[in-house]
Amino acid sequence: MSSDKVANLFADIPEKLPQELSSLLLEGKNVRIERIVSLGHSSKPGFWYQQNEHEWVVLLTGGALLRWEDGREETLAPGDYVYIPAGEKHRVEGTLAGEHSVWLAIFFTQ
Amino acid sequence: MSSDKVANLFADIPEKLPQELSSLLLEGKNVRIERIVSLGHSSKPGFWYQQNEHEWVVLLTGGALLRWEDGREETLAPGDYVYIPAGEKHRVEGTLAGEHSVWLAIFFTQ
Repeated sequence: MSSDKVANLFADIPEKLPQELSSLLLEGKNVRIERIVSLGHSSKPGFWYQQNEHEWVVLLTGGALLRWEDGREETLAPGDYVYIPAGEKHRVEGTLAGEHSVWLAIFFTQ
Repeated sequence: MSSDKVANLFADIPEKLPQELSSLLLEGKNVRIERIVSLGHSSKPGFWYQQNEHEWVVLLTGGALLRWEDGREETLAPGDYVYIPAGEKHRVEGTLAGEHSVWLAIFFTQ
């Protein structure tokens, strides 16, 4: 097994995105790395993420508003990252409409 | 266990860096996430990284030149990422002198 070719996180982003775009960058036994691109998208009304995996996520471009079930809200600007343990209910309340929000998410099990 | 406070990848970077700056952002049983900031740094002459863990690394700002033992070289610009399997000998041949190169590295075991 040898290293992959270099690729770029900001490449291959369509200008229009009817739906959020998720790209699997790496998958291992205990870890998965995804790029997610949003363009004004948000979680559907009433929907909460409640995941089996822990998630560490950083927003690299754009802007977003996250909400947790306990009412906590966090505005994310480029470079902001947060750790979301497995099972913790949260949702994307919104992302900026005018530009691509590029997320890098690391999902992992213990 | 609940989610951490939001923090920013580009915060708390000293203007001068006599040495590369490594910050542990998350540590799990099988995964470790680090921010590394370089400012013209490179691996010492003759030094090769040869790690027990797999590494997926993305350069977010700045610029860098990576080299592998087989002679392969890769220039990294912001957004460029590469997967480096455990054991694969590589080194940082150089990073830009005039600006901070911020790396996000995910180390993991299988």
